[in-house]
Amino acid sequence: MSGRLAVVGLGPGDVRWLTPEADAALAAADALFGYGPYLDRAPVRDGQTGPRSVTGRAATHPTIAKKRCAPATLSKPRPPDTNATLAPAAAVCEQIESGPATWRGLDLEIVPGITAMLAVAARVGAPLGHDFCALSLSDNLKPWPVIERRLDAAAQAGFVIALYNPISRARPWQLTAALERLRRYLPTTTPIVFGRAVGRADENIAVTTLQAADPVGADMATLVIVGSAETRLVPRPGHAPLVYTPRSASA
Amino acid sequence: MSGRLAVVGLGPGDVRWLTPEADAALAAADALFGYGPYLDRAPVRDGQTGPRSVTGRAATHPTIAKKRCAPATLSKPRPPDTNATLAPAAAVCEQIESGPATWRGLDLEIVPGITAMLAVAARVGAPLGHDFCALSLSDNLKPWPVIERRLDAAAQAGFVIALYNPISRARPWQLTAALERLRRYLPTTTPIVFGRAVGRADENIAVTTLQAADPVGADMATLVIVGSAETRLVPRPGHAPLVYTPRSASA
Repeated sequence: MSGRLAVVGLGPGDVRWLTPEADAALAAADALFGYGPYLDRAPVRDGQTGPRSVTGRAATHPTIAKKRCAPATLSKPRPPDTNATLAPAAAVCEQIESGPATWRGLDLEIVPGITAMLAVAARVGAPLGHDFCALSLSDNLKPWPVIERRLDAAAQAGFVIALYNPISRARPWQLTAALERLRRYLPTTTPIVFGRAVGRADENIAVTTLQAADPVGADMATLVIVGSAETRLVPRPGHAPLVYTPRSASA
Repeated sequence: MSGRLAVVGLGPGDVRWLTPEADAALAAADALFGYGPYLDRAPVRDGQTGPRSVTGRAATHPTIAKKRCAPATLSKPRPPDTNATLAPAAAVCEQIESGPATWRGLDLEIVPGITAMLAVAARVGAPLGHDFCALSLSDNLKPWPVIERRLDAAAQAGFVIALYNPISRARPWQLTAALERLRRYLPTTTPIVFGRAVGRADENIAVTTLQAADPVGADMATLVIVGSAETRLVPRPGHAPLVYTPRSASA
């Protein structure tokens, strides 16, 4: 099968995070496919089949490339998407591997985007300035004990932790359980950042501590950054406090 | 102290990864400061003090903001920089915390950029499509046993691992030691990606396995992605193999 499929990372919220490469990929596409709220942000060019909202599997199904020459699948690293730009790309790869052999002949282009964790981190300073991990709290595609094991490992080894998919209506208790688990290993004063809807009009960034962190402040559009024991909170007169993790670590 | 300091992530190599926000921050600066090779890529606007190459501590020293109204410090997530855009931002935060109290009155803006790991991952598919961590192999600012502990924890817990600062003239053995250590936990067939100079004219992306990985193929401009036990390598006729990590994981 011939045809070209681009998976385009739009960056969260703010259109100023859309890279020229991503913009060019959108412009070159004959048709755009993606999740509705993302499609709304993609300009439709002359001669282009208008944005078509698709969800779930359909959004990443290579058969769309049978009909169109160069479709672009939009992916946006909104916090609820596991691992930002790249989980939708993984979904496309899963389809290509499991689908008919001809699908492996597709020209596939992945266009990287600013991820939610980088955008949230930049808002408060540099909490990801040292070794860190990105971890989805969704137990839809992996068992909860796997998530617990990863929380334990990351906290004990000194990684800063960016939590994707922290909470949803169908998964109301996971963030509470994760924070409770992390309290076993990390100081109660460990800085925590709740970054909601980063780059959007309703953006809300809140800095708190592991002790005071209240999952009520999080929703599907929230990315949570949990510091390591080394992460610092620096009060600043007239400014929001700086949150950063020093580049050095002791034994 | 008043004044404005922007830490600007340029993205690795390819100028098409420079976001509009980063471009605007560069244009708004009265002066640009940064590491020479990065400065070479930043256009100088009318009335702007020309790029000034500074290295090490000097590149992130807030006193520059005393003299200029809105300087921009350039940071580029070339692989040798720990944690991409954000380690230079952490360096600035370190200076602000440890410097005179007046420095905390600075207007500080961090502008996120495409990181090297995202750019390298996009070249081969979606190796970061599942939980992953970013880990610097440099033992300049942390003891080697800390790095070993993090390698152990990440591999055993099932994280994909992006290795920054894998090797340099002053640190010739660390990548070999890290790969040897990871062989304790991961299958010999685990896919490994060596992404060298991503987005630059001399870019070289090589896909291999943990068993066959040869550190000779890495240098200061290389970012290494080590898959988890779940990471897949999908051969494609007429195309480079796809490397991706499925979104799901088993117990």
